Amino acid sequence: MAMNDLGIVRRNIVRADRAAVQQLARFGVATIHEAMGRVGLMKTYMRPAYSGARLCGTAVTVLLQPGDNWMLHVAAEQLQEGDVVVAACTTDNDDGFFGDLLATSFRARGAKGLVIDGGVRDVKDLAAMQFPVFSRAISAKGTVKATLGSVNVAVVCAGALVQPGDVVIADDDGVVVVPAAIAQQAADAAQAREANEADKRKRLAAGELGLDMYNMRDPLAKAGLRYID
Amino acid sequence: MAMNDLGIVRRNIVRADRAAVQQLARFGVATIHEAMGRVGLMKTYMRPAYSGARLCGTAVTVLLQPGDNWMLHVAAEQLQEGDVVVAACTTDNDDGFFGDLLATSFRARGAKGLVIDGGVRDVKDLAAMQFPVFSRAISAKGTVKATLGSVNVAVVCAGALVQPGDVVIADDDGVVVVPAAIAQQAADAAQAREANEADKRKRLAAGELGLDMYNMRDPLAKAGLRYID
Amino acid sequence: MAMNDLGIVRRNIVRADRAAVQQLARFGVATIHEAMGRVGLMKTYMRPAYSGARLCGTAVTVLLQPGDNWMLHVAAEQLQEGDVVVAACTTDNDDGFFGDLLATSFRARGAKGLVIDGGVRDVKDLAAMQFPVFSRAISAKGTVKATLGSVNVAVVCAGALVQPGDVVIADDDGVVVVPAAIAQQAADAAQAREANEADKRKRLAAGELGLDMYNMRDPLAKAGLRYID
Amino acid sequence: MAMNDLGIVRRNIVRADRAAVQQLARFGVATIHEAMGRVGLMKTYMRPAYSGARLCGTAVTVLLQPGDNWMLHVAAEQLQEGDVVVAACTTDNDDGFFGDLLATSFRARGAKGLVIDGGVRDVKDLAAMQFPVFSRAISAKGTVKATLGSVNVAVVCAGALVQPGDVVIADDDGVVVVPAAIAQQAADAAQAREANEADKRKRLAAGELGLDMYNMRDPLAKAGLRYID
Amino acid sequence: MAMNDLGIVRRNIVRADRAAVQQLARFGVATIHEAMGRVGLMKTYMRPAYSGARLCGTAVTVLLQPGDNWMLHVAAEQLQEGDVVVAACTTDNDDGFFGDLLATSFRARGAKGLVIDGGVRDVKDLAAMQFPVFSRAISAKGTVKATLGSVNVAVVCAGALVQPGDVVIADDDGVVVVPAAIAQQAADAAQAREANEADKRKRLAAGELGLDMYNMRDPLAKAGLRYID
Amino acid sequence: MAMNDLGIVRRNIVRADRAAVQQLARFGVATIHEAMGRVGLMKTYMRPAYSGARLCGTAVTVLLQPGDNWMLHVAAEQLQEGDVVVAACTTDNDDGFFGDLLATSFRARGAKGLVIDGGVRDVKDLAAMQFPVFSRAISAKGTVKATLGSVNVAVVCAGALVQPGDVVIADDDGVVVVPAAIAQQAADAAQAREANEADKRKRLAAGELGLDMYNMRDPLAKAGLRYID
Repeated sequence: MAMNDLGIVRRNIVRADRAAVQQLARFGVATIHEAMGRVGLMKTYMRPAYSGARLCGTAVTVLLQPGDNWMLHVAAEQLQEGDVVVAACTTDNDDGFFGDLLATSFRARGAKGLVIDGGVRDVKDLAAMQFPVFSRAISAKGTVKATLGSVNVAVVCAGALVQPGDVVIADDDGVVVVPAAIAQQAADAAQAREANEADKRKRLAAGELGLDMYNMRDPLAKAGLRYID
Repeated sequence: MAMNDLGIVRRNIVRADRAAVQQLARFGVATIHEAMGRVGLMKTYMRPAYSGARLCGTAVTVLLQPGDNWMLHVAAEQLQEGDVVVAACTTDNDDGFFGDLLATSFRARGAKGLVIDGGVRDVKDLAAMQFPVFSRAISAKGTVKATLGSVNVAVVCAGALVQPGDVVIADDDGVVVVPAAIAQQAADAAQAREANEADKRKRLAAGELGLDMYNMRDPLAKAGLRYID
Repeated sequence: MAMNDLGIVRRNIVRADRAAVQQLARFGVATIHEAMGRVGLMKTYMRPAYSGARLCGTAVTVLLQPGDNWMLHVAAEQLQEGDVVVAACTTDNDDGFFGDLLATSFRARGAKGLVIDGGVRDVKDLAAMQFPVFSRAISAKGTVKATLGSVNVAVVCAGALVQPGDVVIADDDGVVVVPAAIAQQAADAAQAREANEADKRKRLAAGELGLDMYNMRDPLAKAGLRYID
Repeated sequence: MAMNDLGIVRRNIVRADRAAVQQLARFGVATIHEAMGRVGLMKTYMRPAYSGARLCGTAVTVLLQPGDNWMLHVAAEQLQEGDVVVAACTTDNDDGFFGDLLATSFRARGAKGLVIDGGVRDVKDLAAMQFPVFSRAISAKGTVKATLGSVNVAVVCAGALVQPGDVVIADDDGVVVVPAAIAQQAADAAQAREANEADKRKRLAAGELGLDMYNMRDPLAKAGLRYID
Repeated sequence: MAMNDLGIVRRNIVRADRAAVQQLARFGVATIHEAMGRVGLMKTYMRPAYSGARLCGTAVTVLLQPGDNWMLHVAAEQLQEGDVVVAACTTDNDDGFFGDLLATSFRARGAKGLVIDGGVRDVKDLAAMQFPVFSRAISAKGTVKATLGSVNVAVVCAGALVQPGDVVIADDDGVVVVPAAIAQQAADAAQAREANEADKRKRLAAGELGLDMYNMRDPLAKAGLRYID
Repeated sequence: MAMNDLGIVRRNIVRADRAAVQQLARFGVATIHEAMGRVGLMKTYMRPAYSGARLCGTAVTVLLQPGDNWMLHVAAEQLQEGDVVVAACTTDNDDGFFGDLLATSFRARGAKGLVIDGGVRDVKDLAAMQFPVFSRAISAKGTVKATLGSVNVAVVCAGALVQPGDVVIADDDGVVVVPAAIAQQAADAAQAREANEADKRKRLAAGELGLDMYNMRDPLAKAGLRYID
């Protein structure tokens, strides 16, 4: 076993089932995260580079060095239609690793978007291109190409473990990772959850209380809740 | 006197005078905050969940536990037309305590919006519903219903003391709290201030300097300001 | 030599060449920052007060005291057509130093916008006026007029050194400072860079890899990059 | 009713019962906070200025303006033996409001220490004097004396509501506020809690599991915990 | 495959080789991190609860819910001599999950210390016990026992992936994770590195420059470094 | 004029007068900062790597790239007896740029310590060596040697402008920069200030109020302060 995964590009990765990915694309991040049992969410500092950005695809992972975007160029070659680049960094770094040129390249290679625990720039162009990007920062500061990282190794990105081929979904509510092996299961659970919510929404809109709909009054009383006039 | 206010729901609260609330609704947060003498402002990390959100209403307060939104369901029953839910938490916590289902319920019960020192989710739906929410974070992470907090007790929310029935106003500039007892006084002062500003704006637009309009030259000179060529 | 620069207003400053400023106004912050060799960028916490804000002009600098905007009024008198007010503070402070009244005054005096390492308010009005503001915070909290700072001294604003008369450019990607003496040189370099990027964009859009376009394969191999199947 | 509490010094305040304060002084902050039902704790950013600092006393409250320590001098006159100065600020501000001169003055007037949601300086001298200080920051930056705040009004300090006369206890674990009216009740509850912990500590030291001592196995099983080999 | 790992306790885990762990215990975190190729480091916000704390052991992992330390009690039963408890949380939370009672229990069960991406309390007692703890915060706020997490599943703790049985080393410089499978390899590399440093230290102490010792002058010149008089 | 200062080493710099530096070494940072009129202070996040660290010397400045400490080796050659290395970075970066080997080298070349807007490691060794270091972070993460920065150019370090040769003083209260040209003037002012404080301290210790000693009662009354019983 190798000591570490730096300086490696894995070419053959197992991507999550395409049909499952397409199903997952229909649901919001909050729904999928709930459906999975509340695991796999990235930190809340990950925000869309432009309002309304949204993506769903299979992860091509990248491990970056601070102030260095060399590996994003290496990753471009590994992209297939439907992929999302997920870039972690060996340290907290807000530099602008990514801009409109790389977005143009990634799109040309089939990428659906980028999730990066670092900074990005050219956000006006990204919005104009409608190339979805979720990042920890926006920064005009460019990067060098001097130090090796890796492509398609397991990474921790914004607090979430991402394996190459996992499904990554991002929208206004955040970014969630679905392991490739349970993509279909998660899609089904999300479907079931959404169906269930429609009925609840109707009842709540009619004025029914969650207290009654979810049968909370007894447990609240047992927990000792007191009403005071 | 009770040792603490946990596990309590106060049903009868004295809301600020409705007419005064309606008057306050006409002014911005910055104007009201100035009119009150610069007190009652929440921390600047409280931001609208969607651009253009704005609210004014009487506070139904909630004290939450981290990762637990049980008390928001309890609060729903206490809502009256024109209320705003103001939710504090016993610790800093960014979880998504609130989403479109609770928004549907709160609206059905008459609520004008939510101010929460915690996270919210389904922000696209909240925007579509135009249900105004001001929060410290956006997070897809859901919450449990396991531990008691309280409803309609005094809370410290984002650095501001809020009593049940106080007026809460929020817009792009932040969130301000007006104690119920001085709601009319604050509305009058805001009115006076706004009238005064219209004239100033006109003079400044014509090129008059604040230095002259506010008679600052003498005090500046006395304070020792030196002009150098 | 004076011990410090507090309590001073410098009336005569040398502004960057107007033609160079106009040229720089055509480029984005990321392009200019790259063209200058990646220096002069402010911290990434500086954000536009409203979406789409953008400015380019010559700096009239201000050194503020916390919670005190007296010097902004003093600065107004020193403004000329095409200036941008750049305000630093002697400490980190998010108070709302600036709102629609000062914006009205600054515009009437010829200002193109404001860059402030502090808070601002009335952001809805600023958006309506289309008066561009870049700040560290939004806060409704007003300020006093009690303590001297300075106008047109060298300041460190959000981590960048700014001399009176320097060119300041801000857009969605951040804020960059171009020393007055190299404004033309920076504009020329930005022009060259932008021309160069158009060609690259076309090739990347056609699917060519950065790996090939930038001749990265050899250096990557020499650095030890390994491909694994 | 006055619009706000700025510019006020309340001379006569009701301090918590001295005997209760002395009892509370024997317990740690964590014990008292638990005994009170987990309310009244300040934010965790409040840290001792030197290692081992610890205080317990009755609050003389101060509301400061950013960068301005005038009111600390006003507060000195209101101090009685056994008081602790609790200073809040109208905004987040890390300036050094307090140093060895004020510490000398406060001690001469009977103060037991300082809790300040702001910065302090001369920390080496404070340690040498063994004058306990808990603050949000350490900063050499001095302050002016130009703008009114208040003394002995209700303040929100580091997220906790403090009324003049309340008991404030601080140690390595943080800062907790006990309302004057329940000081004796809190002291008794802390005493009971501490007695109870001694026995638990002994059993745990002997290797007994919390799972058994607290009868957690059944509730864990009911909640669905699964053991896997 | 299960949808998620919540509500699980894995009883049989493979711990890193004991001899390798003992070897690793002799090196500092910085040395081990370098020896591994600069991977496996936790975020820098993880700090010792008391000065001089240091630990090395095999990980028993815990996934906590915010404000809830139930799983720490469950973990106690799984401890063996030489283990370190590594606790992650499903969200950022600074509550005091751990204090002197749990420390007493953990020690009685053989634990070498605790690494927790959350808060701890009773830090004076922890120092007196010399029970090493590394945490993101210190907080007197206690926690409930209401919601399931897991024990001995893979966790992301402070940005680092930790598998049960991995070696965790912590000292003044931070916390590093060594996968169990490469513990011996890492120990050997650390040994080699340390031997190598002793010689360098001597040469540097004698005034030799790193420029010469590491042969940097040529690469610097090639990179374009210019010396100016 | 060059476009930027990257890739430059200035060999001949004018250091502040040695006698003035020695005088400044006798005063604390807070005293010197006050004496200078409250300018030149670094951000409060700069903290000593070990308790009691303290330094005073003439600045050899370094501009680092993120995750890259090449220029610290270049700087070592430029050191003279009595210098302090002041290292800024082109972006916010907490990596461990500096450890005991570089400390050994810097000391051998005459350096009095290091001030770095970045991370450091081997802090236990630094304490043992009593080599004073002030930094923004502690991190075990090492750095590469790949990208040029500069030595002895003007830098902005932790918010303060530092020119090569300026005097830098650091202690428990923070870090302050005294421009070389006013070093003697600042030392004299610090001396005067300290003499003045001794008398004040005595009077305050005797119970005299700052209100009286500083003649604050009249200005407070004029500002509108009201006393309430």
